[in-house]
Amino acid sequence: MARILVMQGANMNWLGIREPEIYGRTTAAELDQQIREYARKKGFEVEIFYTNVEGEAINKIYEAYHQGFEAIVMNPGGFTFSGYALRDAIRGVRDRIVYVEVHIANHYARYRHGEHQNATAASAVGVIMGFGLHGYFLGLDAALHLVENKSKA
Amino acid sequence: MARILVMQGANMNWLGIREPEIYGRTTAAELDQQIREYARKKGFEVEIFYTNVEGEAINKIYEAYHQGFEAIVMNPGGFTFSGYALRDAIRGVRDRIVYVEVHIANHYARYRHGEHQNATAASAVGVIMGFGLHGYFLGLDAALHLVENKSKA
Amino acid sequence: MARILVMQGANMNWLGIREPEIYGRTTAAELDQQIREYARKKGFEVEIFYTNVEGEAINKIYEAYHQGFEAIVMNPGGFTFSGYALRDAIRGVRDRIVYVEVHIANHYARYRHGEHQNATAASAVGVIMGFGLHGYFLGLDAALHLVENKSKA
Amino acid sequence: MARILVMQGANMNWLGIREPEIYGRTTAAELDQQIREYARKKGFEVEIFYTNVEGEAINKIYEAYHQGFEAIVMNPGGFTFSGYALRDAIRGVRDRIVYVEVHIANHYARYRHGEHQNATAASAVGVIMGFGLHGYFLGLDAALHLVENKSKA
Amino acid sequence: MARILVMQGANMNWLGIREPEIYGRTTAAELDQQIREYARKKGFEVEIFYTNVEGEAINKIYEAYHQGFEAIVMNPGGFTFSGYALRDAIRGVRDRIVYVEVHIANHYARYRHGEHQNATAASAVGVIMGFGLHGYFLGLDAALHLVENKSKA
Amino acid sequence: MARILVMQGANMNWLGIREPEIYGRTTAAELDQQIREYARKKGFEVEIFYTNVEGEAINKIYEAYHQGFEAIVMNPGGFTFSGYALRDAIRGVRDRIVYVEVHIANHYARYRHGEHQNATAASAVGVIMGFGLHGYFLGLDAALHLVENKSKA
Amino acid sequence: MARILVMQGANMNWLGIREPEIYGRTTAAELDQQIREYARKKGFEVEIFYTNVEGEAINKIYEAYHQGFEAIVMNPGGFTFSGYALRDAIRGVRDRIVYVEVHIANHYARYRHGEHQNATAASAVGVIMGFGLHGYFLGLDAALHLVENKSKA
Amino acid sequence: MARILVMQGANMNWLGIREPEIYGRTTAAELDQQIREYARKKGFEVEIFYTNVEGEAINKIYEAYHQGFEAIVMNPGGFTFSGYALRDAIRGVRDRIVYVEVHIANHYARYRHGEHQNATAASAVGVIMGFGLHGYFLGLDAALHLVENKSKA
Amino acid sequence: MARILVMQGANMNWLGIREPEIYGRTTAAELDQQIREYARKKGFEVEIFYTNVEGEAINKIYEAYHQGFEAIVMNPGGFTFSGYALRDAIRGVRDRIVYVEVHIANHYARYRHGEHQNATAASAVGVIMGFGLHGYFLGLDAALHLVENKSKA
Amino acid sequence: MARILVMQGANMNWLGIREPEIYGRTTAAELDQQIREYARKKGFEVEIFYTNVEGEAINKIYEAYHQGFEAIVMNPGGFTFSGYALRDAIRGVRDRIVYVEVHIANHYARYRHGEHQNATAASAVGVIMGFGLHGYFLGLDAALHLVENKSKA
Amino acid sequence: MARILVMQGANMNWLGIREPEIYGRTTAAELDQQIREYARKKGFEVEIFYTNVEGEAINKIYEAYHQGFEAIVMNPGGFTFSGYALRDAIRGVRDRIVYVEVHIANHYARYRHGEHQNATAASAVGVIMGFGLHGYFLGLDAALHLVENKSKA
Amino acid sequence: MARILVMQGANMNWLGIREPEIYGRTTAAELDQQIREYARKKGFEVEIFYTNVEGEAINKIYEAYHQGFEAIVMNPGGFTFSGYALRDAIRGVRDRIVYVEVHIANHYARYRHGEHQNATAASAVGVIMGFGLHGYFLGLDAALHLVENKSKA
Repeated sequence: MARILVMQGANMNWLGIREPEIYGRTTAAELDQQIREYARKKGFEVEIFYTNVEGEAINKIYEAYHQGFEAIVMNPGGFTFSGYALRDAIRGVRDRIVYVEVHIANHYARYRHGEHQNATAASAVGVIMGFGLHGYFLGLDAALHLVENKSKA
Repeated sequence: MARILVMQGANMNWLGIREPEIYGRTTAAELDQQIREYARKKGFEVEIFYTNVEGEAINKIYEAYHQGFEAIVMNPGGFTFSGYALRDAIRGVRDRIVYVEVHIANHYARYRHGEHQNATAASAVGVIMGFGLHGYFLGLDAALHLVENKSKA
Repeated sequence: MARILVMQGANMNWLGIREPEIYGRTTAAELDQQIREYARKKGFEVEIFYTNVEGEAINKIYEAYHQGFEAIVMNPGGFTFSGYALRDAIRGVRDRIVYVEVHIANHYARYRHGEHQNATAASAVGVIMGFGLHGYFLGLDAALHLVENKSKA
Repeated sequence: MARILVMQGANMNWLGIREPEIYGRTTAAELDQQIREYARKKGFEVEIFYTNVEGEAINKIYEAYHQGFEAIVMNPGGFTFSGYALRDAIRGVRDRIVYVEVHIANHYARYRHGEHQNATAASAVGVIMGFGLHGYFLGLDAALHLVENKSKA
Repeated sequence: MARILVMQGANMNWLGIREPEIYGRTTAAELDQQIREYARKKGFEVEIFYTNVEGEAINKIYEAYHQGFEAIVMNPGGFTFSGYALRDAIRGVRDRIVYVEVHIANHYARYRHGEHQNATAASAVGVIMGFGLHGYFLGLDAALHLVENKSKA
Repeated sequence: MARILVMQGANMNWLGIREPEIYGRTTAAELDQQIREYARKKGFEVEIFYTNVEGEAINKIYEAYHQGFEAIVMNPGGFTFSGYALRDAIRGVRDRIVYVEVHIANHYARYRHGEHQNATAASAVGVIMGFGLHGYFLGLDAALHLVENKSKA
Repeated sequence: MARILVMQGANMNWLGIREPEIYGRTTAAELDQQIREYARKKGFEVEIFYTNVEGEAINKIYEAYHQGFEAIVMNPGGFTFSGYALRDAIRGVRDRIVYVEVHIANHYARYRHGEHQNATAASAVGVIMGFGLHGYFLGLDAALHLVENKSKA
Repeated sequence: MARILVMQGANMNWLGIREPEIYGRTTAAELDQQIREYARKKGFEVEIFYTNVEGEAINKIYEAYHQGFEAIVMNPGGFTFSGYALRDAIRGVRDRIVYVEVHIANHYARYRHGEHQNATAASAVGVIMGFGLHGYFLGLDAALHLVENKSKA
Repeated sequence: MARILVMQGANMNWLGIREPEIYGRTTAAELDQQIREYARKKGFEVEIFYTNVEGEAINKIYEAYHQGFEAIVMNPGGFTFSGYALRDAIRGVRDRIVYVEVHIANHYARYRHGEHQNATAASAVGVIMGFGLHGYFLGLDAALHLVENKSKA
Repeated sequence: MARILVMQGANMNWLGIREPEIYGRTTAAELDQQIREYARKKGFEVEIFYTNVEGEAINKIYEAYHQGFEAIVMNPGGFTFSGYALRDAIRGVRDRIVYVEVHIANHYARYRHGEHQNATAASAVGVIMGFGLHGYFLGLDAALHLVENKSKA
Repeated sequence: MARILVMQGANMNWLGIREPEIYGRTTAAELDQQIREYARKKGFEVEIFYTNVEGEAINKIYEAYHQGFEAIVMNPGGFTFSGYALRDAIRGVRDRIVYVEVHIANHYARYRHGEHQNATAASAVGVIMGFGLHGYFLGLDAALHLVENKSKA
Repeated sequence: MARILVMQGANMNWLGIREPEIYGRTTAAELDQQIREYARKKGFEVEIFYTNVEGEAINKIYEAYHQGFEAIVMNPGGFTFSGYALRDAIRGVRDRIVYVEVHIANHYARYRHGEHQNATAASAVGVIMGFGLHGYFLGLDAALHLVENKSKA
């Protein structure tokens, strides 16, 4: 049974309240509920972790490594722009943990070229952006697919 | 029954042969076969179109508009870098056609910041990159999800 | 009797349908009708040519050169951004053919400085932008004026 | 009867003398004469104003607003490069006054990309460049067309 | 009675000790004392919060939102340069909380253009900089003024 | 009794009329009235000066120097963008005259980084921006505070 | 017997007519004649292909691959500036086909640094520029040398 | 007898008072006295003109042209940075009037590369900078030398 | 007896595990052991502190200041790239505490010019990079040398 | 009999030893031998000159000018990046001496755009790069061709 | 009697021959003759030194320091662009030796902004450019003036 | 017994005299004395070489290679900024010779980001900067450590 950590970066605890015209009105609690149901249905183990402190996200990654998590699906939220330390932490575990990055909005449409700066995505296997909350489920599917292929190899 | 156009941009006909260390060894014909099977299984109608000429891709988009396609899943391939005319064509149909962009590799990891130029993604609802050929199936799922939600609204 | 080629670049066939809040609701067919009437009234010969393929536009220019056209009035549409080959083709015929470039919108107002990139305008005698479809008629007037002055010299 | 202010910015009083290989040998006085005749022929009222002081141009714009002018056709001349205050003044009156900008030379051909800086054009409805002095008449035609369409609406 | 949170970002706890030639010799404790007296005199409620951890500042903002604070007056200190997550948190509450940013030094004079990077100020109603510690009191006045005008509307 | 010059740069005479969605509907005359009342109430002497000509603003600064003004509160308006000569004039008097710069809008929010160019602010003691017309009064308070502290020293 | 494809990109069909002060007066037909004679003399097989459509050039490359061509000598002409798709196509065949790029003019002398943009040359074994039409023959020599060394290895 | 106009741009009237650590303590009046004596000694006619308004400097240039001045020695002062209109005016008279530019400080030492922007110097025959007020006399010598050589030719 | 704080920034706790091809296989615990032995041998007091939270590093610096540490030898790890707040904290204590920065890899070789961004090094007395773990001992030597010279002065 | 100077710039004496994976294992002495044989076979006179001092290369160019050399074939080696003085020396003799530049590697492939800086190539007739040592012989052929055509003219 | 070293940098030995349309036809020997006569007439001692090797210029500067030269008048020629080591050498002697830089052409007119790079001028007291060979005599006058004022002080 | 070459680049012969506020008052001769004593004490062989000519430094490197030196400790001095040829020479010997770069000042503190250009450091194993002359001894220690580890391997 695959073990996946869903990590929600800076300001994601505020989902459904902060800028609903961009991020929608589903709250963090409701999303968590949907993710847990999806885990039951698809048959994987999930832990959900929220933090606004970049260093806590790094600590969590090392913890996940020791606990044997196989994948991290993260929306880095506010860490996207200057989370270079977070990026390096993810790189440090990539031999054992698959990292999939999810963004609610399409950054190519939202930012102009030159402003389109993303510190963390360079350490991801893949990135999914622009599909709203549905992106979390596409990200979980992608992570499951990667974990399964790995275990077959 | 949802109608989806899968469009393969410049050099995608060469899949499985060109730079297999990046793009893998599955050929274009094999991928088409997998996509058609997936369409049967998921119950949607699919047309697959390859071109190396940007203007033909534009013509195809206008044709798809008249034929009532509901979504386009495209890997722009070599059109990614300077396909501004293609981008504008997609923008011109976005009230009726959902556009999902797929890339086999993760551009954030492959290119450095400042080189990370993408002409077409700004007109997409969402972008999926880095998951290899599996990205096409995530892209089709995303497109189906968007078409269904639209028809409910 | 002056001979003028009106060339419509990428996406201009979509006039009246694509982004009408910028480009208006007059269709390509209606505009063609107006241009032909204007030609009759003003007494010049006109051919109208649409293409979404940059290389076809280049071929057309060389053809126009052999057929003795005296002026080209072009809205490059989607070719504006990276049509460097098209720009060079126009430069190659400028001893015999007057080139006037027309844009429906005012690029100085629409794009910010630094994004204001135009590949083709450098090879034009003059540029007219921002006056909507009326710009085509100002462009035809300008072209006629230039052709007449040339033949007098 | 439409009322149009023709404004000539920095160094335009020197027309016909300064750099005649670019700007021609027609003097400012001769051009004024042609513009006044054109006004008589076309049936509009015209005032022509020259200044080398950007602030006087701004003052004139506010004066024109109070006197009920409907359009300004301006060649900003030397104000083009850093006339940001002038640009803002024009923006401040655009609900009532149509602004058309004219340049004798085609800036896209004369300057390289990156040097192509224009402070005032962003506040224009449209821009006409590259047709020599004939550009003033195309600009007056454009302004008349805009004023007429406005009064019909 | 207006409720205002005064937030002091990274290194502000070190006020009066760190670089006194720029920031002066008044300590953080002395400034707090002055702010509390000012609150008594002007009749508003104030809480003062110091942190060197950006994520704790974000947590405090969400807490302030739930506790019904009406304004935040913040000197982001060391968070100024890359506090993009903090910026987004403030944006997320701006419908209910007025944000006023204070800097002791005038950044326009201290940094050259191009180095003048400020992550947080874009989410402020207004910015006050260069007046030393007096800037906190101008900032509190501005916040009170904004809160009062809001409640009248 | 402190003597303060309030200077209004290019286009500020147009207050209340020009772009009211940004600058509000209070006219220049009404603002002057409020400033004069504020001077009476607070007990300082004020002169208000408007100009659209940058050189006249410079002349006024030298005049103010000879007349013994102690502070200048200026909204440079349209001089903001390229008023380098004005900046140097202010620098030339800063031993005797305190300069406080006021902007109605928050430039950090209105312009993107890289476009955020301000020629005059580098010569100010401090800058206040984003509080609408209330910023003039915060600016006058700041100037008074600075003049008083100076005379005590 | 070595098999070489000589490909002429956008506007090269216009050789001898377009900008003869840069490109000379030898026509495309005359150059073809010289190349064919050179092939006979040196003992290699040659096909010459002209196109103004980038996608056709890409198609031709894949065709050449299947037909067993060993080298491509190309002057990309107008494709030089934004032919990224063409560049990728060449990269896709470089295990089997040697690519030599030829330019008539010396780009280092013709363009300034920063403007010196070449999309296709990065996929070439080597580049020859500045020797006029003689460059084609140097390019053919280089290609023959490379093909021979390869077959020996 | 050579006729030379010495023009002093923005803020030069403030010489000896403004930033004396850079510009020295000699006043504008004292400098004028020295220049007039130098003219008597060297036998040339001189007029000295100060202005803080760029447009007045432009007007003066056209006036000098009509009055037959042979050289202008100018310290553009505050016009240096964005005086593009002034630059164009000087260009317009350069067939008849020699222009020598003088700066009190050495801009190469004072500004960093990239900040070293000078709008007017591009239209000068030559530039002298860094020698304090002595630069005016070097500039007058240079102008005399140029006028004499011209009249000999 | 000199008192030195060895601080290990973001991801340094992961030493020996994360990217061993760059950072080697010695673990953090083993390095600590070597540092403690070195302190005994050289006769200085050492405290070693690890954190992934930038704000905790700042807090530690202020604590070290109060406890009378004389030097900090830090490898900022992941804080290198955007640790501007950390940089300012170090600047705030530099009158009493010597700061030496150590990096395991040579940044000049690892990053290209333009990407070579280091937020913290500007506040160091000196920097040592590229010597692997041996750099910590060179750094401790440098710190001891600086502390001794200081106490002599 | 044509006279050609082969000049080898900084580090070229080290050929065959320095970075053989890029530059191959043929030594400078072996290359010289091949060049001398080629000269005998083709019937031209050759002198080969190595230097690591840019000024000596400049001196050699002036010497070659006086000795009547007709062509220089140079690999500038380490002078490529900042040899602006060398570039100017070559420009100074180009009326009499043909300059052909050779590089062993293809700079377009080796460097990214923006890093692709070449000080000397702007003064060459043509450039040959990427063909390994064979490039010297292509360069000699090109030089001979140019010298012959010149003497015919 | 003042002692002045006239230094001629890279390619200046070639004066009168290299690019005479820019630098004139007077040879280095003729210029030396004029300078020596000028020294006799004005009563100062002069040594003239030419070199194409930057390091020799640096050696000469240290020699001049030991020999008690009071001024250096240098045209750095080809050293202008990247002579940073030369710049630092001049800085090292500036307490005792006055440095005046001369250029034959006006760099502001010859180069565009951004390309206008000068490594050495930042270490000069003053710069004279654009007056042809007459600039050397203006430079010697400036140097004499500076030496005299210094000895008076 | 390890053999180390200490190389002193441009202007380092001037140590103790040039800019003593940055580089101190110890002369080059005194430093040499200290280095020789250190070599005796630590038991390694040392040669010290000074040059102001970059090409001589390159020659010395190749000589050192032939003489069997195991390490070079260099302060490139004035070669730092554009010594690309020197950088390539060092790269060419790095299989046999360890290169350690020393700078007296901390470049991160002395230069701003973007100006922080170092041509040579990219070819060093490691860099030591900011510790004054003590840096030479840290550099020698580092070199010895590297040579010893190498000989053990």
